[in-house]
Amino acid sequence: MHIVYKSEPERGRIWQRWLAEHAPDIQLHLWPETGDPEQVEALVAWQPPEDIPALFPRLKLLFSVGAGADQFDFSALPPDLPVIRMIEPGLTQGMVEYVTFAVLGLHRDMPRYFHQQRQQQWQPHAAIPAGQRRVGVMGLGELGQAALAQLVALGFDCAGWSRTPRECPGVRCWYGNDQLADFLAHSEILVCLLPLTDTTQGLLNQSLFSQLPHGAALVQAGRGPQLNDDDLLRALESGQLRAAVVDVTDPEPLPPGHPFWHHPAIWLTPHIASQTQNESAIAALLENLRRYQRGEPLHGEIDRSRGY
Amino acid sequence: MHIVYKSEPERGRIWQRWLAEHAPDIQLHLWPETGDPEQVEALVAWQPPEDIPALFPRLKLLFSVGAGADQFDFSALPPDLPVIRMIEPGLTQGMVEYVTFAVLGLHRDMPRYFHQQRQQQWQPHAAIPAGQRRVGVMGLGELGQAALAQLVALGFDCAGWSRTPRECPGVRCWYGNDQLADFLAHSEILVCLLPLTDTTQGLLNQSLFSQLPHGAALVQAGRGPQLNDDDLLRALESGQLRAAVVDVTDPEPLPPGHPFWHHPAIWLTPHIASQTQNESAIAALLENLRRYQRGEPLHGEIDRSRGY
Repeated sequence: MHIVYKSEPERGRIWQRWLAEHAPDIQLHLWPETGDPEQVEALVAWQPPEDIPALFPRLKLLFSVGAGADQFDFSALPPDLPVIRMIEPGLTQGMVEYVTFAVLGLHRDMPRYFHQQRQQQWQPHAAIPAGQRRVGVMGLGELGQAALAQLVALGFDCAGWSRTPRECPGVRCWYGNDQLADFLAHSEILVCLLPLTDTTQGLLNQSLFSQLPHGAALVQAGRGPQLNDDDLLRALESGQLRAAVVDVTDPEPLPPGHPFWHHPAIWLTPHIASQTQNESAIAALLENLRRYQRGEPLHGEIDRSRGY
Repeated sequence: MHIVYKSEPERGRIWQRWLAEHAPDIQLHLWPETGDPEQVEALVAWQPPEDIPALFPRLKLLFSVGAGADQFDFSALPPDLPVIRMIEPGLTQGMVEYVTFAVLGLHRDMPRYFHQQRQQQWQPHAAIPAGQRRVGVMGLGELGQAALAQLVALGFDCAGWSRTPRECPGVRCWYGNDQLADFLAHSEILVCLLPLTDTTQGLLNQSLFSQLPHGAALVQAGRGPQLNDDDLLRALESGQLRAAVVDVTDPEPLPPGHPFWHHPAIWLTPHIASQTQNESAIAALLENLRRYQRGEPLHGEIDRSRGY
């Protein structure tokens, strides 16, 4: 079986060596090398090349190397080409770590303490126990459920919200537009892990912030275009929000001079919450290729009507 | 039963109201009010008054309001007076939160990312999974064991060290001076939760840092006098350590102009890792008073020969 990889070359070489050892029947070509294009059945890419049908007439599968596939322009892809996003334990574990770090930091007022440090100010503030801290996670897929399991283990009072009904052990779950206000009113720390779709674009705006408890905090680990930057800055200025941890921006990298860089109540990280881990990702990809060969359904296939 | 409380007045009033409701047979006096000193059986204090035998001739118990009792001058206390430190779920939970936050932050290189933010630098770095990150906790009492349980749940490769042998599920445990070097060589992130004693004073020094893997990180949530500040600064400068999270200093508050305030690789917090929670602490105190009344052993009694 022949597949073409088009993303970071260093990871490609690692994957090539790994497959040579674990699945020698699968030939991984590193773009722009493709072998015989007529034989290529699968493409693994962050950004696919243009005009896929002309390049790879017999292509059967398109894999994203990331947890999402919103970087793909679906209108430019063959309509019946299955698109599969990456579900691998390394990505999930990374997000659990990031969300746990951010929620604990906001719970314990760490942005305020780090600001005090720069002011040479030694001033303790009263803390409340995790059981009295209400945390809400938007997006209850693979990543959201795993993050909530960890937050529940830490004793937080957890809620979840998703487009369609979901169940999560130990978590009060709401769903749909009708229940969004109730969920938001509960969320003293709001974590966004939603995929980017037409309905989530610009969702984190003044109207949403105003429905959170006064002095709430935000963790934005979804996608950059979901957040209205100006509305966040205004909410921080008014005190409606007290702090935010932001991992994704629009555009990325964030341009020089953007107010997020120097805001004392914003922790900014360069889209590192969840990073594909070479070893666990290639093992997950191989598992999906074997499923394809056996005619079984694949893990992480995108429903194009929903966009995720 | 009559007891005297000598610490923050606000907490004292909360405890007084709580006892009036839950244990009306116990009378809590707020220092300097003591009732009839002849009747006082227990003293609850951060700093006890001088000359206890003269003040309270029938005193049977001295409780610390904190997790440690190293703030007491034992030589000034009656030698046979039992001293009991605070063991309560709020204190433990607070420390678990702080250590989890600090270890995750160091694991994911957050001090570096926050420094990059202030430089307007968008630069991701490769992350390793928690399973490949070796974390070592010094001090395996109540707090150390609870922190390790959470770190194990997050998938870290955990080790522990204590003065005497201890067992911790999922944790490789070392003990005593002979095994300290092996433990340190394992600890890419070292967490200090040791009590302050003659042997732990100044323990976190150049000699100890040099036994850690190159580029290790430190979480200091023990007691201020355990850390040699100059040695930490030198270890950070040489790269032997890459970052430190420091909650306790000597003295406290840290004096103005001290290099920790502005060091980009040091996160400084004002002794807030673990704070006694009013409700759970008074419940724990009452439970100990009932044990005393029933003639049972108390939770958290200090062994004066060890100092903790």
